Amino acid sequence: METWACIRGRVAVRSFTDQEVPEEVVLRVLEAGRWAPSSKNSQPWHFIVVRDRATLQELSRLTQTGPYLANAPMAIVVAMIGAKFPEADAGRAIQNMVLAAWDQGLGTCWVANFEQEPTRRLLGLPGDAVVITAFPMGFPTAEVAGRGKRRKPLAEIASWERFGQHRPRSEPAATTESL
Amino acid sequence: METWACIRGRVAVRSFTDQEVPEEVVLRVLEAGRWAPSSKNSQPWHFIVVRDRATLQELSRLTQTGPYLANAPMAIVVAMIGAKFPEADAGRAIQNMVLAAWDQGLGTCWVANFEQEPTRRLLGLPGDAVVITAFPMGFPTAEVAGRGKRRKPLAEIASWERFGQHRPRSEPAATTESL
Repeated sequence: METWACIRGRVAVRSFTDQEVPEEVVLRVLEAGRWAPSSKNSQPWHFIVVRDRATLQELSRLTQTGPYLANAPMAIVVAMIGAKFPEADAGRAIQNMVLAAWDQGLGTCWVANFEQEPTRRLLGLPGDAVVITAFPMGFPTAEVAGRGKRRKPLAEIASWERFGQHRPRSEPAATTESL
Repeated sequence: METWACIRGRVAVRSFTDQEVPEEVVLRVLEAGRWAPSSKNSQPWHFIVVRDRATLQELSRLTQTGPYLANAPMAIVVAMIGAKFPEADAGRAIQNMVLAAWDQGLGTCWVANFEQEPTRRLLGLPGDAVVITAFPMGFPTAEVAGRGKRRKPLAEIASWERFGQHRPRSEPAATTESL
């Protein structure tokens, strides 16, 4: 899939078919995280592939948005270890992974706010690990596949030169919304 | 460009040609940020396109890694306003933008750690804005265009089911490293 189509078309997916995710697809997603940029190239991340049903259900009980995990065919846990900027570096790696998943026909969604210590214990993570997310991953059910997404208009979230200043040109911007 | 080629091929670029970045290319990068996911779809970001030389030089003095900004043709400032998870949401939007830039032949690099109050004043940002980065953007000079990048091996940063546990299958993984 073209990069722009992937960025523009991706939506959060919270409902998955029972179909197993092939191992080579999982590996491609992990590689996408591996090749992400990080602060001083520190790569302070660890990814754990979870397919075990009992572990997925246990994970789902450790955060309020956990139900999305309980019925997913698998999840990837992203933990940061010894990171100076754990959230920013995680965000970059996770976005790479989310796009690599979508590029391969898979959906994901952001599940976070895990109880840290029980989650570390469940997964055998070291005491200084910060669990950022465990994102469920699978093939989307038909009902979510064609869903749109809502965003603020560009004029509201972008300025030129100074906050609140509009684009200097008077002609309308070429639309970049179409795929 | 194919999504995987973009994710795998992107490198940090810190040296740019003098060529101006066309406005439609900038708009596509902003749209990539706009369509990123964020916590509860809060979209708590604001992007400021800076081409003014004096502003770029002033920005470059407000962080230690600023010199990359001083000679770039432009930069995009990413500030988070009222964000519950500013770094994680910023990381996701920025990675979308960085990939959209690379997809269009442009390079970027992560410049951060800005002195917050002077940067907000310079750009007219509200007092509760958190400046995450001002990333320079431009066409890479020839010398950086073909550069590789180093990453830890996958076996070091990924586990299966539990931290430190290797892939359950004995056959070697299909390589996903080639473009």
